[in-house]
Amino acid sequence: MEFSAQQIADFLQGKVEGNPNITVNNVSKIEEGAPSTLSFLANPKYTHYIYTTKSSIVLVNDDFIAERPINATLIKVKDAYKSIAMLLNLVAQATPKRSGTEQNVYIDNSVEVPAEHYIGAFAYISKGVKLGNNVSIYPQVYIGDNVKIGNNVTLYPGVKIYHNCVIGNNCTIHAGCVIGGDGFGFAPTETGYQKIAQIGNVVLEDNVEIGSNTTIDRATMGSTIIRQGVKLDNLIQIAHNVEIGKDTVIAAQTGIAGSSKVGERCMFGGQVGIAGHINIGSHVNIGAQSGIPNSVGDNHSLMGYPAVNGKDFARQVVYLKQLPDLNKEVKELKKQIELLKNNITK
Amino acid sequence: MEFSAQQIADFLQGKVEGNPNITVNNVSKIEEGAPSTLSFLANPKYTHYIYTTKSSIVLVNDDFIAERPINATLIKVKDAYKSIAMLLNLVAQATPKRSGTEQNVYIDNSVEVPAEHYIGAFAYISKGVKLGNNVSIYPQVYIGDNVKIGNNVTLYPGVKIYHNCVIGNNCTIHAGCVIGGDGFGFAPTETGYQKIAQIGNVVLEDNVEIGSNTTIDRATMGSTIIRQGVKLDNLIQIAHNVEIGKDTVIAAQTGIAGSSKVGERCMFGGQVGIAGHINIGSHVNIGAQSGIPNSVGDNHSLMGYPAVNGKDFARQVVYLKQLPDLNKEVKELKKQIELLKNNITK
Amino acid sequence: MEFSAQQIADFLQGKVEGNPNITVNNVSKIEEGAPSTLSFLANPKYTHYIYTTKSSIVLVNDDFIAERPINATLIKVKDAYKSIAMLLNLVAQATPKRSGTEQNVYIDNSVEVPAEHYIGAFAYISKGVKLGNNVSIYPQVYIGDNVKIGNNVTLYPGVKIYHNCVIGNNCTIHAGCVIGGDGFGFAPTETGYQKIAQIGNVVLEDNVEIGSNTTIDRATMGSTIIRQGVKLDNLIQIAHNVEIGKDTVIAAQTGIAGSSKVGERCMFGGQVGIAGHINIGSHVNIGAQSGIPNSVGDNHSLMGYPAVNGKDFARQVVYLKQLPDLNKEVKELKKQIELLKNNITK
Repeated sequence: MEFSAQQIADFLQGKVEGNPNITVNNVSKIEEGAPSTLSFLANPKYTHYIYTTKSSIVLVNDDFIAERPINATLIKVKDAYKSIAMLLNLVAQATPKRSGTEQNVYIDNSVEVPAEHYIGAFAYISKGVKLGNNVSIYPQVYIGDNVKIGNNVTLYPGVKIYHNCVIGNNCTIHAGCVIGGDGFGFAPTETGYQKIAQIGNVVLEDNVEIGSNTTIDRATMGSTIIRQGVKLDNLIQIAHNVEIGKDTVIAAQTGIAGSSKVGERCMFGGQVGIAGHINIGSHVNIGAQSGIPNSVGDNHSLMGYPAVNGKDFARQVVYLKQLPDLNKEVKELKKQIELLKNNITK
Repeated sequence: MEFSAQQIADFLQGKVEGNPNITVNNVSKIEEGAPSTLSFLANPKYTHYIYTTKSSIVLVNDDFIAERPINATLIKVKDAYKSIAMLLNLVAQATPKRSGTEQNVYIDNSVEVPAEHYIGAFAYISKGVKLGNNVSIYPQVYIGDNVKIGNNVTLYPGVKIYHNCVIGNNCTIHAGCVIGGDGFGFAPTETGYQKIAQIGNVVLEDNVEIGSNTTIDRATMGSTIIRQGVKLDNLIQIAHNVEIGKDTVIAAQTGIAGSSKVGERCMFGGQVGIAGHINIGSHVNIGAQSGIPNSVGDNHSLMGYPAVNGKDFARQVVYLKQLPDLNKEVKELKKQIELLKNNITK
Repeated sequence: MEFSAQQIADFLQGKVEGNPNITVNNVSKIEEGAPSTLSFLANPKYTHYIYTTKSSIVLVNDDFIAERPINATLIKVKDAYKSIAMLLNLVAQATPKRSGTEQNVYIDNSVEVPAEHYIGAFAYISKGVKLGNNVSIYPQVYIGDNVKIGNNVTLYPGVKIYHNCVIGNNCTIHAGCVIGGDGFGFAPTETGYQKIAQIGNVVLEDNVEIGSNTTIDRATMGSTIIRQGVKLDNLIQIAHNVEIGKDTVIAAQTGIAGSSKVGERCMFGGQVGIAGHINIGSHVNIGAQSGIPNSVGDNHSLMGYPAVNGKDFARQVVYLKQLPDLNKEVKELKKQIELLKNNITK
């Protein structure tokens, strides 16, 4: 598909500066721009690329003022970042959607397949499963007994959902995720560890998205709960009985230990570790690789191992680097004090 | 199913305080208690919930003394934690077990299917595989050539076991685990890295449980060995030629590099890193996110990056926080010494 | 198969010391040596084992001089490590290779199956996929629309490759990997996070090997690129729009955040974290568990959180341990200064 600068500007309610008839058939990053593609400029760090990019069209914020001539045609919009997101979604939606049931699927007789759906080959849907409308179940997905899946849910290839779990509406779960595996519960005995049965489940509320190969364990009793709008990246570990509040986003390889609660609208970086049985408030930001051993109130911004507030972490880092100098200084002071003592006693 | 307080007390060899005829049909956490459910109180931190819980029955230790009236019927037992574990296992065992071979499986002609078994659709069992009795192989499992599986083993959906690996009796492997992938072995050459073939295997002894999406690499030669009773959580990495001693438990996202040996009855927190080619003794506890660069003897309790003993870590953390103050103090001393010098020389 | 010491020496262009007719049928580690096996000695730490090993043959470097009598027959070669690697590859190649298309596969009509190939049961190959010659696609693999796979590629069981990704020649991808899942891109809005469509892809160049359950996200636009010869271990996270340079090797559980670029011939330890939008030069070594928040030039060797150069890290660790003593010393100096002051004013 090809679109002209004018067509795109009309769609985005923007204004063309340059050739309104120039056309593009793809998008590209401004630093890798190519003819017949559209780029965008939102981050000021990238501004210098606009003067050399080979992209045919660049989306810019409407307060952008060029300091030198620009080859590309500009489209000025209120928010270049939001506009490019709109265009990307448009491109993504243009991809034809899979539909229907392929051969070689296992669907228990008790399962009612909704009118709109895609069920790929080698998918397995167990007894008592409820499927919402417009569900996309990719190949090699496993859905255990009595799982409930909401409307407009996409389960990418190889997702595994254990029995009794609940997936809300508009959820997207990427390939290789495991939802509802047993929580890590063992009681020590004299002859080794005794397994504690994990009879709870996992509940994902609406609009949750989960990245590839992430694991969310079922509760011992009750539910491990992921509230609406939560976004989890890849390879994250959510232990049994954890609860994650609305609209919290968590980057890859973070782990949250058993029974901890996380508030709303938090942002965690990658490889963060949250101890078990603690509470993290709402609007808490945690820097990458930080370790959180204790509960934290609302509105904190933390960093480090163990984590302190962001400013204190920055100071710790500086002083840590200066430790060798500090040691030298203290040795020097010691010497001087000895000299002074000798002077006085003389 | 419904059970009365008296029936449960009889099963647990406990004593009813309250209504022996009240019935429950589910379990719940004491802080989320609901009518017709049974809760337990083992952790003193949760004691206050017993006065407000809506659970119909609460299991308590027999030395529990109420300070105020309690609505729930109590069952006093010797060990409330062990008793709830027994009840949870009872509930779990009540779930009907899958059995038989479903359609659409791949089983090589050379494989003998045991009398008691479950083999789910889209499972793949290669040439020369030996299956123990009462094996449960969920859908989409892959078992490579000549793998040996013991009795009473459960392989959850999507588990992948490479050729020649050995799985002991009573092992449970959760969804998405990869057992026996190639160890990470490459020799540097002038034109890039040359792969070193990994011709060993992985051996799991009896009573091992492994969490979702954990990976255990095959040995270069010989075996990567997980001794009996070991419990591994989710997303753990065990490299080639590692050996983990009896009854050691390891929390999620921990990684153990190549050829390291871990002793018996160790406990590692989440996201711990163990360097390659080192030895960790028995009864070693390692705190979450710690890094262990060198060998460690028996009975240590370690924390930090690089790890030190737990007490030293706690002190380091305190002193680290006070570093800015220490710097100020040293500056102040310097000033005072200068003053003293001037005083003396005057 | 059995080989004599003389046959092996001839193959490796080495020299026999001992019985040239003694035969072996397997390899073993020198510390676990058994009769009829061959071991090697390359690391001097293991030299003492050569006097007690039960291996029938030991490969040694040609400058090895025995200090005591040795039972085993020796084969002296120029480089014992390279020689054992050659033998291991020989053993690995002796395993018969799978070939042909098994029953119960899904192959879209548009896909041309190459002459030499293995396609295992329950594999799924979507519309528009191009397969190179001598491709091995193990059971339960998923290949999305329009994916291109080069020659001599092996995809182990359960690998998932999303649409439009490109896999170069001679690549090996281990079980459970997810290539081309959506990048973690969401724009904050007042009513929650808005997904940003990820319309780019992942490109693996030639000779790339990727460990089990590793995830590589597709680019938002353009490509996430893994250059030729890169080796990634297990459970690694590569975010959208990352680029990893030629012949870089990365150990398990490391994570690289969005849009960062890594140079050539780098070596990263396990559990390393690389922040987003930064550049790492070529020939950079990063120690296990380190955190890299900022860009780094060529030829650095880094360690720590946040990382500093290796020597500085070692000094920091020493001084960190001495912090309690330093505090004591400063207190003592303070006291002495007070005494001096009193002395002077008297």
